[in-house]
Amino acid sequence: MRIGELGERSGVSIPTIKYYVREGLVPSGLRTKANQVDYGEAHLRRLRLVRALLEVGELSVATAKQVIAVLDDPEESALRSMGKAAYALGGGFPATAPRGEDHAGGAGVPNAGTASATRVDDLLDRHGWTVGPNNPARAQLASAFGVAEALGMGDALDQIDRYAEAAYSVAEVDIEIALSPATLDESTERMLVWTVVGDRAITALRRLAQEAVAVKRM
Amino acid sequence: MRIGELGERSGVSIPTIKYYVREGLVPSGLRTKANQVDYGEAHLRRLRLVRALLEVGELSVATAKQVIAVLDDPEESALRSMGKAAYALGGGFPATAPRGEDHAGGAGVPNAGTASATRVDDLLDRHGWTVGPNNPARAQLASAFGVAEALGMGDALDQIDRYAEAAYSVAEVDIEIALSPATLDESTERMLVWTVVGDRAITALRRLAQEAVAVKRM
Repeated sequence: MRIGELGERSGVSIPTIKYYVREGLVPSGLRTKANQVDYGEAHLRRLRLVRALLEVGELSVATAKQVIAVLDDPEESALRSMGKAAYALGGGFPATAPRGEDHAGGAGVPNAGTASATRVDDLLDRHGWTVGPNNPARAQLASAFGVAEALGMGDALDQIDRYAEAAYSVAEVDIEIALSPATLDESTERMLVWTVVGDRAITALRRLAQEAVAVKRM
Repeated sequence: MRIGELGERSGVSIPTIKYYVREGLVPSGLRTKANQVDYGEAHLRRLRLVRALLEVGELSVATAKQVIAVLDDPEESALRSMGKAAYALGGGFPATAPRGEDHAGGAGVPNAGTASATRVDDLLDRHGWTVGPNNPARAQLASAFGVAEALGMGDALDQIDRYAEAAYSVAEVDIEIALSPATLDESTERMLVWTVVGDRAITALRRLAQEAVAVKRM
Protein backbone atom coordinates (compact mmCIF):
# COMPACT_ATOMS: atom_id res chain seq x y z
CA MET A 1 0.00 0.00 0.00
CA ARG A 2 1.02 3.63 -0.41
CA ILE A 3 1.92 5.78 2.59
CA GLY A 4 -1.47 7.50 2.40
CA GLU A 5 -3.32 4.25 2.94
CA LEU A 6 -0.89 3.25 5.69
CA GLY A 7 -1.67 6.54 7.40
CA GLU A 8 -5.40 6.04 7.11
CA ARG A 9 -5.40 2.47 8.33
CA SER A 10 -3.08 3.19 11.26
CA GLY A 11 -4.52 6.56 12.23
CA VAL A 12 -0.98 7.95 12.18
CA SER A 13 -0.22 11.06 10.12
CA ILE A 14 2.19 10.82 7.20
CA PRO A 15 4.77 13.19 8.75
CA THR A 16 4.73 11.05 11.91
CA ILE A 17 5.20 7.85 9.88
CA LYS A 18 8.17 9.45 8.14
CA TYR A 19 9.57 10.50 11.50
CA TYR A 20 9.30 6.93 12.82
CA VAL A 21 11.04 5.59 9.72
CA ARG A 22 13.85 8.14 10.10
CA GLU A 23 14.23 7.15 13.76
CA GLY A 24 14.40 3.47 12.83
CA LEU A 25 11.22 2.59 14.72
CA VAL A 26 9.46 1.49 11.54
CA PRO A 27 11.30 -0.13 8.62
CA SER A 28 11.48 1.71 5.32
CA GLY A 29 9.00 0.85 2.64
CA LEU A 30 10.01 -0.90 -0.56
CA ARG A 31 10.84 1.51 -3.39
CA THR A 32 8.95 0.13 -6.37
CA LYS A 33 9.29 3.05 -8.77
CA ALA A 34 11.29 6.26 -8.74
CA ASN A 35 8.42 8.04 -7.06
CA GLN A 36 6.63 5.27 -5.18
CA VAL A 37 7.29 3.45 -1.92
CA ASP A 38 5.26 0.43 -0.94
CA TYR A 39 4.27 -0.61 2.59
CA GLY A 40 2.84 -3.93 3.76
CA GLU A 41 0.88 -5.38 6.65
CA ALA A 42 4.10 -5.70 8.65
CA HIS A 43 4.51 -1.92 8.51
CA LEU A 44 0.97 -1.43 9.72
CA ARG A 45 1.52 -3.80 12.64
CA ARG A 46 4.78 -2.15 13.53
CA LEU A 47 3.20 1.30 13.45
CA ARG A 48 0.54 0.18 15.89
CA LEU A 49 3.17 -1.26 18.16
CA VAL A 50 5.17 1.97 18.11
CA ARG A 51 2.08 4.01 18.98
CA ALA A 52 1.28 1.67 21.85
CA LEU A 53 4.81 1.92 23.24
CA LEU A 54 5.03 5.70 22.93
CA GLU A 55 1.52 6.73 23.88
CA VAL A 56 0.15 4.05 26.15
CA GLY A 57 3.46 2.84 27.57
CA GLU A 58 4.83 6.38 27.59
CA LEU A 59 8.26 5.12 26.62
CA SER A 60 10.86 7.49 25.30
CA VAL A 61 11.78 7.13 21.63
CA ALA A 62 15.19 5.83 22.80
CA THR A 63 13.65 3.05 24.92
CA ALA A 64 11.14 2.21 22.19
CA LYS A 65 14.12 1.77 19.83
CA GLN A 66 15.69 -0.76 22.18
CA VAL A 67 12.44 -2.68 22.41
CA ILE A 68 12.02 -2.64 18.64
CA ALA A 69 15.60 -3.83 18.21
CA VAL A 70 14.63 -7.07 19.92
CA LEU A 71 11.96 -7.66 17.30
CA ASP A 72 14.49 -7.14 14.55
CA ASP A 73 16.85 -9.70 16.10
CA PRO A 74 14.55 -12.46 17.36
CA GLU A 75 15.53 -15.39 19.56
CA GLU A 76 14.88 -18.99 18.61
CA SER A 77 11.65 -19.21 20.58
CA ALA A 78 8.71 -16.90 21.11
CA LEU A 79 9.10 -17.10 24.89
CA ARG A 80 12.76 -16.08 24.73
CA SER A 81 12.03 -13.18 22.40
CA MET A 82 9.18 -12.12 24.61
CA GLY A 83 11.46 -12.16 27.62
CA LYS A 84 14.13 -10.14 25.90
CA ALA A 85 11.53 -7.61 24.79
CA ALA A 86 10.07 -7.40 28.30
CA TYR A 87 13.51 -6.63 29.73
CA ALA A 88 14.01 -3.89 27.14
CA LEU A 89 10.61 -2.50 28.03
CA GLY A 90 11.90 -1.94 31.53
CA GLY A 91 9.87 -0.39 34.26
CA GLY A 92 6.31 0.09 33.32
CA PHE A 93 6.24 3.28 35.33
CA PRO A 94 8.09 6.17 33.79
CA ALA A 95 10.36 7.68 36.43
CA THR A 96 11.95 6.44 39.60
CA ALA A 97 13.98 9.59 40.22
CA PRO A 98 12.44 12.24 42.46
CA ARG A 99 10.59 14.94 40.57
CA GLY A 100 9.58 18.49 41.32
CA GLU A 101 13.00 19.27 42.72
CA ASP A 102 13.60 22.12 40.30
CA HIS A 103 12.40 24.55 42.93
CA ALA A 104 14.57 23.11 45.69
CA GLY A 105 17.28 20.57 46.36
CA GLY A 106 15.74 18.09 48.76
CA ALA A 107 16.23 14.40 49.08
CA GLY A 108 12.96 13.03 47.78
CA VAL A 109 11.58 9.58 48.38
CA PRO A 110 14.58 7.33 49.01
CA ASN A 111 15.42 4.60 46.58
CA ALA A 112 15.53 0.94 47.43
CA GLY A 113 18.24 -0.33 49.73
CA THR A 114 19.67 -3.76 50.30
CA ALA A 115 16.86 -4.67 52.67
CA SER A 116 14.31 -4.11 49.91
CA ALA A 117 16.33 -6.15 47.40
CA THR A 118 16.49 -9.02 49.91
CA ARG A 119 12.77 -8.74 50.42
CA VAL A 120 12.29 -9.19 46.67
CA ASP A 121 14.57 -12.26 46.65
CA ASP A 122 12.63 -13.74 49.56
CA LEU A 123 9.33 -13.16 47.82
CA LEU A 124 10.52 -14.85 44.62
CA ASP A 125 11.80 -17.80 46.69
CA ARG A 126 8.59 -18.15 48.66
CA HIS A 127 6.55 -18.29 45.48
CA GLY A 128 9.02 -20.46 43.59
CA TRP A 129 9.30 -17.93 40.78
CA THR A 130 12.37 -18.36 38.58
CA VAL A 131 13.41 -14.84 37.58
CA GLY A 132 16.75 -13.81 36.08
CA PRO A 133 19.01 -11.47 38.07
CA ASN A 134 18.73 -8.77 35.39
CA ASN A 135 14.96 -8.52 35.21
CA PRO A 136 14.43 -4.76 35.63
CA ALA A 137 11.24 -5.36 37.59
CA ARG A 138 13.36 -6.57 40.53
CA ALA A 139 14.69 -3.07 41.10
CA GLN A 140 11.25 -1.59 40.54
CA LEU A 141 9.64 -3.79 43.12
CA ALA A 142 12.47 -3.09 45.56
CA SER A 143 11.95 0.63 44.95
CA ALA A 144 8.22 0.31 45.70
CA PHE A 145 9.09 -1.54 48.91
CA GLY A 146 11.54 1.19 49.90
CA VAL A 147 8.99 3.91 49.22
CA ALA A 148 6.31 2.12 51.24
CA GLU A 149 8.69 1.86 54.19
CA ALA A 150 9.76 5.49 53.88
CA LEU A 151 6.13 6.59 53.83
CA GLY A 152 5.33 4.71 57.03
CA MET A 153 3.43 1.93 55.25
CA GLY A 154 5.83 -0.94 55.84
CA ASP A 155 2.95 -2.92 57.35
CA ALA A 156 1.29 -3.05 53.92
CA LEU A 157 4.22 -5.16 52.74
CA ASP A 158 3.12 -7.94 55.09
CA GLN A 159 0.28 -8.47 52.61
CA ILE A 160 2.52 -8.55 49.56
CA ASP A 161 2.08 -12.27 48.98
CA ARG A 162 -1.57 -11.70 48.20
CA TYR A 163 -0.59 -9.15 45.58
CA ALA A 164 1.95 -11.59 44.19
CA GLU A 165 -0.71 -14.29 43.82
CA ALA A 166 -2.98 -11.89 41.96
CA ALA A 167 -0.07 -10.84 39.73
CA TYR A 168 0.69 -14.46 38.93
CA SER A 169 -2.83 -15.16 37.76
CA VAL A 170 -2.65 -11.99 35.64
CA ALA A 171 0.67 -13.12 34.15
CA GLU A 172 -0.72 -16.55 33.25
CA VAL A 173 -3.40 -14.87 31.17
CA ASP A 174 -0.81 -12.47 29.71
CA ILE A 175 1.36 -15.30 28.42
CA GLU A 176 -1.65 -17.17 27.04
CA ILE A 177 -2.75 -14.07 25.15
CA ALA A 178 0.73 -13.46 23.78
CA LEU A 179 1.20 -17.05 22.64
CA SER A 180 -2.17 -17.34 20.91
CA PRO A 181 -1.01 -16.31 17.41
CA ALA A 182 1.04 -18.60 15.22
CA THR A 183 4.20 -16.62 14.55
CA LEU A 184 7.07 -15.70 16.83
CA ASP A 185 7.11 -12.08 15.69
CA GLU A 186 3.47 -11.61 16.43
CA SER A 187 3.78 -13.18 19.87
CA THR A 188 6.53 -10.77 20.84
CA GLU A 189 4.58 -7.80 19.53
CA ARG A 190 1.42 -8.88 21.32
CA MET A 191 3.34 -9.38 24.53
CA LEU A 192 4.66 -5.83 24.32
CA VAL A 193 1.38 -4.20 23.39
CA TRP A 194 -0.61 -6.11 25.97
CA THR A 195 1.92 -5.45 28.69
CA VAL A 196 1.53 -1.68 28.33
CA VAL A 197 -2.21 -1.67 27.59
CA GLY A 198 -2.79 -4.27 30.30
CA ASP A 199 -1.08 -2.06 32.89
CA ARG A 200 -3.70 0.56 32.16
CA ALA A 201 -6.56 -1.88 32.30
CA ILE A 202 -5.36 -3.40 35.58
CA THR A 203 -4.87 0.01 37.21
CA ALA A 204 -8.39 1.03 36.23
CA LEU A 205 -9.87 -2.32 37.33
CA ARG A 206 -8.15 -1.97 40.69
CA ARG A 207 -9.80 1.40 41.29
CA LEU A 208 -13.21 0.15 40.22
CA ALA A 209 -12.83 -2.89 42.45
CA GLN A 210 -11.74 -0.69 45.37
CA GLU A 211 -15.05 1.12 45.14
CA ALA A 212 -16.99 -2.14 44.84
CA VAL A 213 -15.25 -3.54 47.93
CA ALA A 214 -15.79 -0.31 49.87
CA VAL A 215 -19.48 -0.18 48.97
CA LYS A 216 -19.93 -3.74 50.24
CA ARG A 217 -18.44 -2.74 53.57
CA MET A 218 -20.57 0.37 54.07
CA MET B 1 9.40 20.61 65.93
CA ARG B 2 11.25 23.28 63.97
CA ILE B 3 11.32 23.24 60.16
CA GLY B 4 14.89 21.87 60.23
CA GLU B 5 13.81 18.75 62.09
CA LEU B 6 10.76 18.38 59.84
CA GLY B 7 13.09 18.49 56.86
CA GLU B 8 15.40 15.88 58.34
CA ARG B 9 12.66 13.49 59.36
CA SER B 10 10.80 13.77 56.05
CA GLY B 11 13.84 13.86 53.78
CA VAL B 12 12.35 16.94 52.11
CA SER B 13 14.47 20.08 51.81
CA ILE B 14 13.39 23.24 53.62
CA PRO B 15 12.80 25.27 50.42
CA THR B 16 10.59 22.44 49.14
CA ILE B 17 8.62 22.35 52.40
CA LYS B 18 8.10 26.09 52.13
CA TYR B 19 6.99 25.66 48.53
CA TYR B 20 4.42 23.05 49.54
CA VAL B 21 3.11 25.32 52.29
CA ARG B 22 2.78 28.24 49.84
CA GLU B 23 0.91 25.97 47.41
CA GLY B 24 -1.44 24.84 50.16
CA LEU B 25 -0.35 21.21 49.97
CA VAL B 26 0.94 21.26 53.55
CA PRO B 27 -0.68 23.38 56.29
CA SER B 28 1.29 26.24 57.82
CA GLY B 29 3.11 25.60 61.06
CA LEU B 30 2.04 27.26 64.31
CA ARG B 31 3.82 30.54 65.00
CA THR B 32 4.95 30.26 68.61
CA LYS B 33 7.31 33.24 68.80
CA ALA B 34 8.09 36.10 66.47
CA ASN B 35 10.83 34.08 64.85
CA GLN B 36 9.72 30.50 65.40
CA VAL B 37 7.21 28.25 63.65
CA ASP B 38 6.30 24.90 65.06
CA TYR B 39 5.38 21.77 63.12
CA GLY B 40 3.82 18.55 64.40
CA GLU B 41 3.44 14.91 63.44
CA ALA B 42 0.49 15.83 61.22
CA HIS B 43 2.80 17.99 59.12
CA LEU B 44 5.26 15.15 58.80
CA ARG B 45 2.53 12.75 57.69
CA ARG B 46 1.18 15.27 55.21
CA LEU B 47 4.63 15.87 53.75
CA ARG B 48 5.09 12.17 53.15
CA LEU B 49 1.72 11.99 51.46
CA VAL B 50 2.53 14.92 49.18
CA ARG B 51 5.83 13.31 48.17
CA ALA B 52 4.06 10.06 47.42
CA LEU B 53 1.46 11.78 45.27
CA LEU B 54 3.94 13.92 43.34
CA GLU B 55 6.82 11.49 42.94
CA VAL B 56 5.36 8.03 42.99
CA GLY B 57 1.89 8.89 41.70
CA GLU B 58 3.34 11.50 39.34
CA LEU B 59 0.39 13.77 39.93
CA SER B 60 0.55 17.40 38.97
CA VAL B 61 0.60 19.90 41.82
CA ALA B 62 -2.92 20.94 40.75
CA THR B 63 -4.28 17.38 41.02
CA ALA B 64 -2.44 16.81 44.29
CA LYS B 65 -4.18 19.93 45.64
CA GLN B 66 -7.58 18.48 44.78
CA VAL B 67 -6.70 15.24 46.51
CA ILE B 68 -5.42 17.07 49.58
CA ALA B 69 -8.58 19.19 49.65
CA VAL B 70 -10.56 16.01 50.36
CA LEU B 71 -8.45 15.39 53.45
CA ASP B 72 -9.13 18.89 54.67
CA ASP B 73 -12.89 18.39 54.28
CA PRO B 74 -13.50 14.82 55.43
CA GLU B 75 -16.72 12.87 55.09
CA GLU B 76 -18.49 11.24 58.01
CA SER B 77 -16.93 7.83 57.39
CA ALA B 78 -13.47 6.63 56.43
CA LEU B 79 -14.84 4.69 53.47
CA ARG B 80 -16.63 7.75 52.10
CA SER B 81 -13.56 9.93 52.50
CA MET B 82 -11.42 7.27 50.89
CA GLY B 83 -13.81 7.12 47.95
CA LYS B 84 -13.83 10.87 47.49
CA ALA B 85 -10.03 10.93 47.62
CA ALA B 86 -9.79 8.08 45.12
CA TYR B 87 -11.99 9.98 42.67
CA ALA B 88 -9.80 13.07 43.06
CA LEU B 89 -6.75 10.92 42.44
CA GLY B 90 -8.17 10.13 39.03
CA GLY B 91 -6.47 7.93 36.57
CA GLY B 92 -3.40 6.29 37.89
CA PHE B 93 -1.74 6.62 34.53
CA PRO B 94 -0.68 10.12 33.64
CA ALA B 95 -1.89 10.88 30.14
CA THR B 96 -4.67 9.63 27.91
CA ALA B 97 -4.09 12.20 25.19
CA PRO B 98 -1.83 11.19 22.31
CA ARG B 99 1.75 12.28 22.75
CA GLY B 100 4.66 12.91 20.44
CA GLU B 101 2.47 14.79 18.01
CA ASP B 102 4.56 17.94 18.25
CA HIS B 103 6.40 16.84 15.12
CA ALA B 104 3.24 16.06 13.20
CA GLY B 105 -0.51 16.31 13.36
CA GLY B 106 -1.75 12.74 13.22
CA ALA B 107 -4.66 11.08 14.92
CA GLY B 108 -2.92 8.91 17.48
CA VAL B 109 -4.45 6.02 19.36
CA PRO B 110 -8.18 6.62 19.37
CA ASN B 111 -9.98 7.29 22.61
CA ALA B 112 -12.75 5.12 23.96
CA GLY B 113 -16.07 5.05 22.16
CA THR B 114 -19.56 4.06 23.26
CA ALA B 115 -18.85 0.40 22.62
CA SER B 116 -16.01 0.47 25.14
CA ALA B 117 -18.13 2.27 27.74
CA THR B 118 -20.84 -0.38 27.32
CA ARG B 119 -18.22 -3.06 27.71
CA VAL B 120 -17.23 -1.51 31.05
CA ASP B 121 -20.88 -1.43 32.19
CA ASP B 122 -21.30 -5.06 31.22
CA LEU B 123 -18.19 -6.06 33.11
CA LEU B 124 -19.35 -4.28 36.28
CA ASP B 125 -22.75 -5.97 35.95
CA ARG B 126 -21.28 -9.41 35.43
CA HIS B 127 -19.17 -9.10 38.55
CA GLY B 128 -21.85 -7.39 40.61
CA TRP B 129 -19.60 -4.41 41.34
CA THR B 130 -21.44 -1.31 42.53
CA VAL B 131 -19.51 1.62 41.08
CA GLY B 132 -20.73 5.21 40.83
CA PRO B 133 -21.19 6.74 37.38
CA ASN B 134 -18.49 9.33 38.06
CA ASN B 135 -15.67 7.00 39.04
CA PRO B 136 -12.87 8.21 36.73
CA ALA B 137 -11.57 4.66 36.34
CA ARG B 138 -14.60 3.88 34.16
CA ALA B 139 -13.29 6.13 31.42
CA GLN B 140 -9.77 4.82 31.92
CA LEU B 141 -10.83 1.24 31.52
CA ALA B 142 -12.92 2.13 28.48
CA SER B 143 -9.90 3.88 27.02
CA ALA B 144 -7.73 0.80 27.56
CA PHE B 145 -10.41 -1.30 25.83
CA GLY B 146 -10.50 1.12 22.91
CA VAL B 147 -6.73 1.07 22.58
CA ALA B 148 -6.61 -2.74 22.67
CA GLU B 149 -9.20 -2.90 19.88
CA ALA B 150 -7.39 -0.27 17.82
CA LEU B 151 -4.13 -2.18 18.19
CA GLY B 152 -5.67 -5.40 16.92
CA MET B 153 -5.79 -7.02 20.37
CA GLY B 154 -9.54 -7.08 20.87
CA ASP B 155 -9.30 -10.83 21.53
CA ALA B 156 -7.36 -10.10 24.75
CA LEU B 157 -10.51 -8.46 26.08
CA ASP B 158 -12.24 -11.84 26.07
CA GLN B 159 -10.02 -12.64 29.04
CA ILE B 160 -10.83 -9.46 30.91
CA ASP B 161 -12.89 -11.21 33.57
CA ARG B 162 -9.81 -12.98 34.81
CA TYR B 163 -8.07 -9.63 35.20
CA ALA B 164 -11.13 -8.30 37.01
CA GLU B 165 -11.03 -11.18 39.48
CA ALA B 166 -7.36 -10.54 40.20
CA ALA B 167 -8.07 -6.81 40.62
CA TYR B 168 -10.85 -7.58 43.07
CA SER B 169 -8.61 -9.65 45.29
CA VAL B 170 -6.03 -6.84 45.16
CA ALA B 171 -8.71 -4.30 46.11
CA GLU B 172 -9.84 -6.37 49.08
CA VAL B 173 -6.32 -6.23 50.49
CA ASP B 174 -6.10 -2.50 49.64
CA ILE B 175 -9.19 -1.66 51.68
CA GLU B 176 -8.02 -3.83 54.58
CA ILE B 177 -4.68 -2.04 54.62
CA ALA B 178 -6.31 1.39 54.47
CA LEU B 179 -8.78 0.64 57.25
CA SER B 180 -6.22 -0.83 59.63
CA PRO B 181 -5.42 2.41 61.55
CA ALA B 182 -7.85 3.91 64.01
CA THR B 183 -8.49 7.37 62.62
CA LEU B 184 -10.43 8.50 59.57
CA ASP B 185 -7.70 10.89 58.44
CA GLU B 186 -5.06 8.23 58.53
CA SER B 187 -7.21 5.77 56.60
CA THR B 188 -7.71 8.24 53.80
CA GLU B 189 -4.03 9.06 53.67
CA ARG B 190 -3.03 5.40 53.66
CA MET B 191 -5.53 4.68 50.92
CA LEU B 192 -3.97 7.38 48.76
CA VAL B 193 -0.37 6.45 49.45
CA TRP B 194 -0.95 2.75 48.99
CA THR B 195 -2.95 3.25 45.81
CA VAL B 196 -0.04 4.99 44.10
CA VAL B 197 2.74 2.87 45.63
CA GLY B 198 0.68 -0.29 45.09
CA ASP B 199 0.33 0.49 41.37
CA ARG B 200 4.10 0.37 41.16
CA ALA B 201 4.38 -2.82 43.14
CA ILE B 202 1.69 -4.55 41.10
CA THR B 203 3.23 -3.49 37.79
CA ALA B 204 6.60 -4.87 38.89
CA LEU B 205 5.08 -8.08 40.27
CA ARG B 206 3.27 -8.62 36.99
CA ARG B 207 6.53 -8.45 35.06
CA LEU B 208 8.31 -10.78 37.46
CA ALA B 209 5.40 -13.22 37.31
CA GLN B 210 5.39 -13.06 33.50
CA GLU B 211 8.96 -14.32 33.51
CA ALA B 212 8.17 -17.02 36.08
CA VAL B 213 5.21 -18.22 33.97
CA ALA B 214 7.28 -18.14 30.76
CA VAL B 215 10.15 -20.09 32.35
CA LYS B 216 7.72 -22.78 33.47
CA ARG B 217 6.51 -23.17 29.89
CA MET B 218 9.96 -23.42 28.31
